[in-house]
Amino acid sequence: MTEEYKYEYFNVSFPAEYVAHVEINRPEKLNAFVEQMWLNLSTIFRRLSPDPSVRSIILTGAGDRAFTAGLDVQAASQGTLGRPSADPARAANSLRRHIHEFQQCVTDVEKCEKPVIAVLHGISFGLALDLSLACDIRLSTTSTRFSVKEVDIGLAADIGTLSRLPKAVGNSSWVKEICLTARIFGGEEAQSVGLVSGVYGDKSEAVQEALKIASVIASKSPVATMGTKELLNYSRDHSVADGLNYTAIWNAAMVQTQDVKDAMLSGLQKRKPTFSKL
Amino acid sequence: MTEEYKYEYFNVSFPAEYVAHVEINRPEKLNAFVEQMWLNLSTIFRRLSPDPSVRSIILTGAGDRAFTAGLDVQAASQGTLGRPSADPARAANSLRRHIHEFQQCVTDVEKCEKPVIAVLHGISFGLALDLSLACDIRLSTTSTRFSVKEVDIGLAADIGTLSRLPKAVGNSSWVKEICLTARIFGGEEAQSVGLVSGVYGDKSEAVQEALKIASVIASKSPVATMGTKELLNYSRDHSVADGLNYTAIWNAAMVQTQDVKDAMLSGLQKRKPTFSKL
Amino acid sequence: MTEEYKYEYFNVSFPAEYVAHVEINRPEKLNAFVEQMWLNLSTIFRRLSPDPSVRSIILTGAGDRAFTAGLDVQAASQGTLGRPSADPARAANSLRRHIHEFQQCVTDVEKCEKPVIAVLHGISFGLALDLSLACDIRLSTTSTRFSVKEVDIGLAADIGTLSRLPKAVGNSSWVKEICLTARIFGGEEAQSVGLVSGVYGDKSEAVQEALKIASVIASKSPVATMGTKELLNYSRDHSVADGLNYTAIWNAAMVQTQDVKDAMLSGLQKRKPTFSKL
Amino acid sequence: MTEEYKYEYFNVSFPAEYVAHVEINRPEKLNAFVEQMWLNLSTIFRRLSPDPSVRSIILTGAGDRAFTAGLDVQAASQGTLGRPSADPARAANSLRRHIHEFQQCVTDVEKCEKPVIAVLHGISFGLALDLSLACDIRLSTTSTRFSVKEVDIGLAADIGTLSRLPKAVGNSSWVKEICLTARIFGGEEAQSVGLVSGVYGDKSEAVQEALKIASVIASKSPVATMGTKELLNYSRDHSVADGLNYTAIWNAAMVQTQDVKDAMLSGLQKRKPTFSKL
Amino acid sequence: MTEEYKYEYFNVSFPAEYVAHVEINRPEKLNAFVEQMWLNLSTIFRRLSPDPSVRSIILTGAGDRAFTAGLDVQAASQGTLGRPSADPARAANSLRRHIHEFQQCVTDVEKCEKPVIAVLHGISFGLALDLSLACDIRLSTTSTRFSVKEVDIGLAADIGTLSRLPKAVGNSSWVKEICLTARIFGGEEAQSVGLVSGVYGDKSEAVQEALKIASVIASKSPVATMGTKELLNYSRDHSVADGLNYTAIWNAAMVQTQDVKDAMLSGLQKRKPTFSKL
Amino acid sequence: MTEEYKYEYFNVSFPAEYVAHVEINRPEKLNAFVEQMWLNLSTIFRRLSPDPSVRSIILTGAGDRAFTAGLDVQAASQGTLGRPSADPARAANSLRRHIHEFQQCVTDVEKCEKPVIAVLHGISFGLALDLSLACDIRLSTTSTRFSVKEVDIGLAADIGTLSRLPKAVGNSSWVKEICLTARIFGGEEAQSVGLVSGVYGDKSEAVQEALKIASVIASKSPVATMGTKELLNYSRDHSVADGLNYTAIWNAAMVQTQDVKDAMLSGLQKRKPTFSKL
Repeated sequence: MTEEYKYEYFNVSFPAEYVAHVEINRPEKLNAFVEQMWLNLSTIFRRLSPDPSVRSIILTGAGDRAFTAGLDVQAASQGTLGRPSADPARAANSLRRHIHEFQQCVTDVEKCEKPVIAVLHGISFGLALDLSLACDIRLSTTSTRFSVKEVDIGLAADIGTLSRLPKAVGNSSWVKEICLTARIFGGEEAQSVGLVSGVYGDKSEAVQEALKIASVIASKSPVATMGTKELLNYSRDHSVADGLNYTAIWNAAMVQTQDVKDAMLSGLQKRKPTFSKL
Repeated sequence: MTEEYKYEYFNVSFPAEYVAHVEINRPEKLNAFVEQMWLNLSTIFRRLSPDPSVRSIILTGAGDRAFTAGLDVQAASQGTLGRPSADPARAANSLRRHIHEFQQCVTDVEKCEKPVIAVLHGISFGLALDLSLACDIRLSTTSTRFSVKEVDIGLAADIGTLSRLPKAVGNSSWVKEICLTARIFGGEEAQSVGLVSGVYGDKSEAVQEALKIASVIASKSPVATMGTKELLNYSRDHSVADGLNYTAIWNAAMVQTQDVKDAMLSGLQKRKPTFSKL
Repeated sequence: MTEEYKYEYFNVSFPAEYVAHVEINRPEKLNAFVEQMWLNLSTIFRRLSPDPSVRSIILTGAGDRAFTAGLDVQAASQGTLGRPSADPARAANSLRRHIHEFQQCVTDVEKCEKPVIAVLHGISFGLALDLSLACDIRLSTTSTRFSVKEVDIGLAADIGTLSRLPKAVGNSSWVKEICLTARIFGGEEAQSVGLVSGVYGDKSEAVQEALKIASVIASKSPVATMGTKELLNYSRDHSVADGLNYTAIWNAAMVQTQDVKDAMLSGLQKRKPTFSKL
Repeated sequence: MTEEYKYEYFNVSFPAEYVAHVEINRPEKLNAFVEQMWLNLSTIFRRLSPDPSVRSIILTGAGDRAFTAGLDVQAASQGTLGRPSADPARAANSLRRHIHEFQQCVTDVEKCEKPVIAVLHGISFGLALDLSLACDIRLSTTSTRFSVKEVDIGLAADIGTLSRLPKAVGNSSWVKEICLTARIFGGEEAQSVGLVSGVYGDKSEAVQEALKIASVIASKSPVATMGTKELLNYSRDHSVADGLNYTAIWNAAMVQTQDVKDAMLSGLQKRKPTFSKL
Repeated sequence: MTEEYKYEYFNVSFPAEYVAHVEINRPEKLNAFVEQMWLNLSTIFRRLSPDPSVRSIILTGAGDRAFTAGLDVQAASQGTLGRPSADPARAANSLRRHIHEFQQCVTDVEKCEKPVIAVLHGISFGLALDLSLACDIRLSTTSTRFSVKEVDIGLAADIGTLSRLPKAVGNSSWVKEICLTARIFGGEEAQSVGLVSGVYGDKSEAVQEALKIASVIASKSPVATMGTKELLNYSRDHSVADGLNYTAIWNAAMVQTQDVKDAMLSGLQKRKPTFSKL
Repeated sequence: MTEEYKYEYFNVSFPAEYVAHVEINRPEKLNAFVEQMWLNLSTIFRRLSPDPSVRSIILTGAGDRAFTAGLDVQAASQGTLGRPSADPARAANSLRRHIHEFQQCVTDVEKCEKPVIAVLHGISFGLALDLSLACDIRLSTTSTRFSVKEVDIGLAADIGTLSRLPKAVGNSSWVKEICLTARIFGGEEAQSVGLVSGVYGDKSEAVQEALKIASVIASKSPVATMGTKELLNYSRDHSVADGLNYTAIWNAAMVQTQDVKDAMLSGLQKRKPTFSKL
């Protein structure tokens, strides 16, 4: 199956049963993103989403130096941001289309039916935040260097950080400080405010832990884990009353699954259940 | 008054003035819930809500072993979840009605006019989370064993955890991990991510602290504490602008109370005010 | 310029380039608020908002004893709250107008285009919370004494705390406890739950740090920092999908700025950019 | 079955297969409502909702003179509205509980799974609007006399008209005029602005038409009509994007029904399908 | 009192008890708006809102030729729209401030506590729609010439029409056509789609009718009419569930008024009640 | 250019400058939809959206008999709806993906930057409504036969009608009746309730009128018409306050366009402006 997922800037492997590993692969440029990369990212996650052989996903950067240094500023300055336009409104509309497309590619990670675990290591600037905030679980190393870098290039972060960070982390004062100053911070600070849920000694340890969590998730009913991801994402953006109502119809469809019977029986018999593909 | 609140699976007592103590009472089954229990829970909290003799409530489990082990899976597997149905849509509708009723019973705790303090001790699985997230304040012991257990029986938690947990806790990565893996965690972890606001040596100490907090609340104007609970719950589900507007009309009605005058005067005179019943 | 910002109860100074310092100045009464003060507060922040010489703002209380002790209860009891009214509905409407006006004054701090950093020191009761929660960044000292004091005067906090606190802090159990009991807590507790993002030895150190952060912000593109503040505030009250969409049109207008080119170039050339006034 | 639905102030009959007819029965008082009546109304519709023998419902008033003249003002003036209360806040809270309960009874009509057709005839004042706006389809006679009567007794309508009317009718200027002046209007005006969807010569004709529509609805798949009602009500209160998403999971559960196959086949074979009970 | 309301471009008179008449007064320019006019408009309605001598308001244009021809394009082209700006982002921010201020002035009409009746007569272009859509009731003459004129000057209407029109009128196809083409339409078309609730032979007749409606409103309890306006405006922007909940607390405060007792008693005694000032 | 838009089931032509005409082309099957058709529809509108040669679009059905008879039921019964699935949850998830994709294709018409005018003629059942409700303007003929047909095949309409119809039309009673009974209705009824904004003698006349409207729209500034469409769609799903705020930043970007200057000048000089491509 591995050969089906071949892309210039990404490695996709399958390190364990039902677990996919997506690696950003442009280490010589600190995994900085050019347009082709976010288009590929979107394609990969739109394919992983319904792939019955996949139940959880790990996302990392190739090499030890960076998860990603963010947008490739040099490339970007020669792209849309650098193009002249006679009319401010036409320029604005062209920019708006461009931002929407870019946002959409990152949102495809969030919309992926299978849970995604990001391991943030080394330099994790700008787009590293936008991207990992669209993932479900974030792990870090003690030496990860995080920064919401965008104000340093004269703009408000527009690919997701400013929309998702305030809902991911429970310290709005810290969120504002970090986004307004572009200050670099480390893994322990990230954990203390709630941005990541684990900090490990180095990249290898963190990836090991990610693989462990991914394997646990992959061992559960895929109906249950897909529903859990969807309902938690839904709740973030809706009132509790709306969340409960959506949950009721969701489970009205989903708890009819054979998985519930199998899981309950396995639990009572203290054995490991197996679930058919989703 | 105590005799008015008699239910097979719950003990209701009044350990201090204006303080009620509701105890889940099925210790021989780790306080696991059968249908009758959530119906009773609803009845109790719908009665406590307007009871003028009650200004704050403590919720615990009987015995030392468990707050509650969650849904009684064996009973449930013989109930709705186990019933055959010829038609998937009719089965879905029957399930939807059932889930709505169950959710409503837990929501009755949230809608109770008086603040509710849950003491999570021993095994606190599944429904323990759904239920305590509908309470206002959560305390724990160092030995409490928490788990969002539902994925282990093949389903997404549908009685409130997935709707309320993301709004109660400021670490979305941790919320996802805990809900997707059903990992067991303890009181200190619960406090570090913001799920509980206090961890105590054992159940007895935690209940003691809950009683202390409940007594402080019961000593305040019941108009003020009811409003504070209602406005905080409202804010969780609305924008700040909506929250401010709702607060303005709420207080337009409520600050006309004699309690404000009494509380202000008592404050200036440094004595303890008494407030009439609500 | 300093002389333009003269008000009886506030000192406004400009301690660094593009940085304003607003000081609540009624130290003999622990900076407690009378009506004139929140009207002045509103005027000051409505003027600072479009002032091209200002890019970030610090808010403190005069003297060492208090940021503010909150509402001047004695004055208030002789004002609206104390006025008799023949008809409950007419009294309610008069109160509603009054609360809306008061709320609006505090919201003017939130609406100020420039980021605001509050340094909470000494006594920080009641209105201290309402006010600092409308600021962007909150710093504290180890000896700050915080309290959501309103229930002690018989009312639910109505000038913003109950609407903004649940969205600023990631521990809803703690929020409820603090608001329902009026318990006094310190800077370290405030940081551990996410209410402030830094705790310093004393007021002077904290102000020093605030000035450092303010200067960093003032050194960035004012287009970028204004947008970052606006988009983060917007996200708090909207779904992620709405946030992304608003961000796209916002940046469609804003990234056409010369600042992006200047910031990018300065970054590549490793020198400090200068930006024209906003 | 008829005997199961016996209530002092309501007649419930079953004029056609799967069709229930609920009649407000206090003609000697123009069907004006006392508290017992809205409690009964709630009970009846909560029972009809899951009743497998019912697929659509007609609601009328007994006698020729009135659908209902609204609240029985004389009775009300001796009830809650007339009770003295020492403290304005405690009075307000008691009123709030009372209004919520009353609203909930009317909302039970809206929440009923089966479509409800109201025939507004004769005097249709105040509560007649609150109540019929919670129904799905509204028919009228040429001589019906409508009025949003509440301002004439010194209050804003609080049982549903002000919340539902602006979403039921496409002329906000007319809605405001009618609600602010309490002007009496007739069936043709009601149809021209979109309040009713049919006007008939007299009550008998209108009931005949209601029965015809109810019978058509009762002949369709109950899975399809229940879903159609639920999804239309949902859409009224949500964005189109939210509506589409909710629809997708709803139908994911519901289109698995045998009814789709039966209905499609009957359609192709041009014969009348029969559907099993819901 | 009349002399208190003196403004260059507006006449304010009091044609009946508790009724104010605001007249746009720049007939020589078809009542076209320059900036000073919308600032004055705001001032007037912010003063009328709490004025106890006013219970309803009529809004018309001076002269027979126009309600208003809209924005004074010549003046505008020399104002903000015509000012050069070096940087597109700084220009955008300046425009955004300007649009917000202009919108706010029109929204002050909507926020006025007292119902406002607009009589649209003669030329009613552009701002005529923005403005009258912020009023509560709209009347027209047979010869009124309406147009959502903005696309003809190269812009999307930004002072309220595009936000309020879709919620005021129940024909979204017509709304789109009218806004996209700037087609001129008359009073009868306006009534048939629900934009106005009455069409009269000429301005004088329409004003007469407006005065009649205004007098009816002024004869009701001002507590009841203020509440009715507020609750209808609230409902437009919220779900039915939110509307009902807001209504409950609103009336919990407001139905304690003496007006309810007086209105009920007057009703039973068939005499005209008088209400004290709001 | 015409040759670029070649699709098996659609004809795309360009009958006037800047006007595109999309024709559903399967007349031998009453233009009933098979899956390939909605995929093509999506592709076409995603291409027309940014096409600088297009400023408005007409949508019709080929032949005189039908706009479209809706879903090709026979084809559908052999597709997803007919496929067996072992597990109800897996079947539900497969259906959910399918419905989302189908909905998305129709939503692409709504998201198209350029206004779309649907001419509903002949048989216009089921999908005809879903599809035309995603268009901006709807015209009809006197002989058009409309039906919300879905309940007749045992399901609630799920491709958009139930989400969009209640917001397009101002008579909720009629909406419910039409959706619950599948009753066939004609063009005049459609216009009287606000579903269409014009009714013409036959298809040819209606298309002529559509072309006239499309040409008027195409003659305006494309910046202004794109903004008008976007802001009206936004308003449908948001509060007025949110709508005004979004409008302010939208126009802050867009009114800087040269088109405003050109349109204003042309207006003053009474000549026809020309605008550059978008």
